[in-house]
Amino acid sequence: MTNMLFGKNLVSIDDISLQNLNLIFTRTEEMKKLVKEKGGDSRLKGKILAALFFEPSTRTFSSFISAMQRLGGGIIPLNGMTNTSIEKGESFEHTVKVFSTYADCLVIRHPQVGLPKKSCLYSTVPVINAGDGIGEHPSQAIYDTYTIFKHFPHKKELIVSLVGDLKNGRTVHSLAKLLAKTNRKIHFNFISPKILKMPEEIKRNVALYHHKIDETDKLSEKVGMSDVLYVTRVQKERFTKLIEYEMVKSYYQVDSQILKNAKKELIIMHPLPIAAGEINTELDTDPRSIYLTSQLQNGLYVRMALLDLILRKESNG
Amino acid sequence: MTNMLFGKNLVSIDDISLQNLNLIFTRTEEMKKLVKEKGGDSRLKGKILAALFFEPSTRTFSSFISAMQRLGGGIIPLNGMTNTSIEKGESFEHTVKVFSTYADCLVIRHPQVGLPKKSCLYSTVPVINAGDGIGEHPSQAIYDTYTIFKHFPHKKELIVSLVGDLKNGRTVHSLAKLLAKTNRKIHFNFISPKILKMPEEIKRNVALYHHKIDETDKLSEKVGMSDVLYVTRVQKERFTKLIEYEMVKSYYQVDSQILKNAKKELIIMHPLPIAAGEINTELDTDPRSIYLTSQLQNGLYVRMALLDLILRKESNG
Amino acid sequence: MTNMLFGKNLVSIDDISLQNLNLIFTRTEEMKKLVKEKGGDSRLKGKILAALFFEPSTRTFSSFISAMQRLGGGIIPLNGMTNTSIEKGESFEHTVKVFSTYADCLVIRHPQVGLPKKSCLYSTVPVINAGDGIGEHPSQAIYDTYTIFKHFPHKKELIVSLVGDLKNGRTVHSLAKLLAKTNRKIHFNFISPKILKMPEEIKRNVALYHHKIDETDKLSEKVGMSDVLYVTRVQKERFTKLIEYEMVKSYYQVDSQILKNAKKELIIMHPLPIAAGEINTELDTDPRSIYLTSQLQNGLYVRMALLDLILRKESNG
Repeated sequence: MTNMLFGKNLVSIDDISLQNLNLIFTRTEEMKKLVKEKGGDSRLKGKILAALFFEPSTRTFSSFISAMQRLGGGIIPLNGMTNTSIEKGESFEHTVKVFSTYADCLVIRHPQVGLPKKSCLYSTVPVINAGDGIGEHPSQAIYDTYTIFKHFPHKKELIVSLVGDLKNGRTVHSLAKLLAKTNRKIHFNFISPKILKMPEEIKRNVALYHHKIDETDKLSEKVGMSDVLYVTRVQKERFTKLIEYEMVKSYYQVDSQILKNAKKELIIMHPLPIAAGEINTELDTDPRSIYLTSQLQNGLYVRMALLDLILRKESNG
Repeated sequence: MTNMLFGKNLVSIDDISLQNLNLIFTRTEEMKKLVKEKGGDSRLKGKILAALFFEPSTRTFSSFISAMQRLGGGIIPLNGMTNTSIEKGESFEHTVKVFSTYADCLVIRHPQVGLPKKSCLYSTVPVINAGDGIGEHPSQAIYDTYTIFKHFPHKKELIVSLVGDLKNGRTVHSLAKLLAKTNRKIHFNFISPKILKMPEEIKRNVALYHHKIDETDKLSEKVGMSDVLYVTRVQKERFTKLIEYEMVKSYYQVDSQILKNAKKELIIMHPLPIAAGEINTELDTDPRSIYLTSQLQNGLYVRMALLDLILRKESNG
Repeated sequence: MTNMLFGKNLVSIDDISLQNLNLIFTRTEEMKKLVKEKGGDSRLKGKILAALFFEPSTRTFSSFISAMQRLGGGIIPLNGMTNTSIEKGESFEHTVKVFSTYADCLVIRHPQVGLPKKSCLYSTVPVINAGDGIGEHPSQAIYDTYTIFKHFPHKKELIVSLVGDLKNGRTVHSLAKLLAKTNRKIHFNFISPKILKMPEEIKRNVALYHHKIDETDKLSEKVGMSDVLYVTRVQKERFTKLIEYEMVKSYYQVDSQILKNAKKELIIMHPLPIAAGEINTELDTDPRSIYLTSQLQNGLYVRMALLDLILRKESNG
């Protein structure tokens, strides 16, 4: 299979074809095996990843720099980007050009929607969007989708309930878009407070592929039918009015009580961190909860696969 | 010799048997040779160390990440841990679980006693305590002990004077506990201001092994007999009452005058940094001072040995 | 050719002989080829670079840690150095001694002139000055000179115009000193506001080699004759009186208008970041502008060459 990801940007789910997705999933399997057997190897020796996080992060930042080094590459680890030339007045364009000279790939997180996409105009090396404000977070969506498909390898139709702040949650934007374009039939439940509904643009995008969409603010109505319960945190930093945040921050609290009618095969996912009690800690040890196990582990494997495919032309591991 | 440290935690001196200590010392000799000859090698290729410093550090942080990379491993370098999901409300348990997914070993420093031990409950990979408040600092104690034994290879009985803040100093807690369980006979002098005496628990622990203990606040009485003078800084950050700190911060000032009756073979040690004049800079070039030379160098070699033993099953170098 | 840079410090242009400069340029060519073909290799495996930036930086910091890792070495990346033992009261001497124990080379940036030089007294490993206040920035001068010579390989006489804050700009200090000692004949134009003139000491140093020097505050008079227009930012952080900064910050604005009489072969350089409009963005795409292309790229190659020569005795690549 030709590696069509080599040298390409990954800033949006729009950059991912079904064929590419399969390529990534195959490479992810190899990476999982590699990590379990040896931790990693030297295939990206001499290559450098610049992790430019204009918004601080722990897990995405750490998993990308872990992934890069497990494959033998080096890192420019800039988490927070407060010590930068931007403070001296440098344009974003110049900053991007500078780093694309030092590094072979840029992983960019930015509080502003569209900045990673904009940086592709300036960069001479591939750019990966690691989250842009309320925009997208494609690598997260890829490993979420991988995780769902691995848990239900034979199920052609899946009922996926996305819960929480669907308006501002970039992970659910990317996930809905990506699931929609796969070869599975998805019944989406978009479950959110009324002021935090899934944006029309995402719904239109999903509808293009003829998936069923239900929208509600009542979680309890949808738990029983779900194969996947994908819960998100209401992110304080996305609200301009604190009062709106206070009104909705504890809107959903997933606990064993609400799960009493849930399927045995249900999987409970979360992009982490779980912050405001949106999933009760009693569920951490529930076998249906995979946010601290396979979902999290797959994040590392998928990011290794992405870096390998984007940075190495050879299509074999 | 079987590598009994493989996959094990190192959070307290209680985790170290005499047999393990000998294993570490043997590997340390190999590491010293490796660094001098080649700087390092690739034995930990593909492995990742997460350095999670919830309290900022310079030397411990830097020596662990240097040690890991000299052996070919990669790093997640988080010094200060201010940019973390913890600020978003994530539990410590989840943070530990996340990093134990990305990394093969966690090195944790935390201002709160017991947090590194607690993290072992959650982590799926080995944890090394790099200092927990006034608790322990086992890797420091191991290289201090290694240094003392290397300087006195044949002396069966040693007079070791620990000087300074013995109440809050985690290095002296770990060192006393470790020296006590070796096969040398130790005469301990615990020299501190009255309000900063060695905790009863540590003294009981030492007494178990039938070592002699003298306690005093008079340094001058004990200098002449000492083989080892281990001086510590009075750490402002450990005091809740500033007035108590001011009373004792300059209690001991080791200089050439106080050393006039000292043995020629004496070694003067300090865990660094030397901050408040507790050792006069005139002693930096005294041949008996080893805090900037062999003691410091052994820190790197011991940490390389620990990472190698904990991360690689093979018991040979 | 014997590698005379092995184990040596690089704190000032005074440390560079013409013979060493040729050695660096030859190695730089090899590095350029290496990066283009493979990204890097493993020749510095087991070696550690401590990047001790007591003043925050983006590009110099990132290019040094990229360079080190492209050659297989590891890094102690301390940008900002706020989390340090210095806050606990440790002396600069001790800090340097500590890092020279953990690392094989120290790259030091410091706001105070002379600190990198001073650190050579304490360090047991080579020190590279990555910029000391208004002092020097030798690695920048080396890649600037390399860039100029590559663009004019056969021109024995060059007209080089240095523009901007020549008083406080460490890059122009180092560049003037280095160009002066090469085997090219240079006609220097020192173009600055009257309060920001090139220091006498630098002018004397340049005059030693019998180069022509013109000084003026009128940029327009000198543009037409120039082969090289080296523009610098007026750095706010170097001014003690804000009013003086405000008076001169926009003194020069290089744009297409002022270039209307410029030579076709002119090259426009800048050490970056461009901050206050000293070069109009319209010139970014002018083929004569090389500050975002070859000048920047050469920074990486030259720093790789320097690290390779300083850290490996073998004189061949």
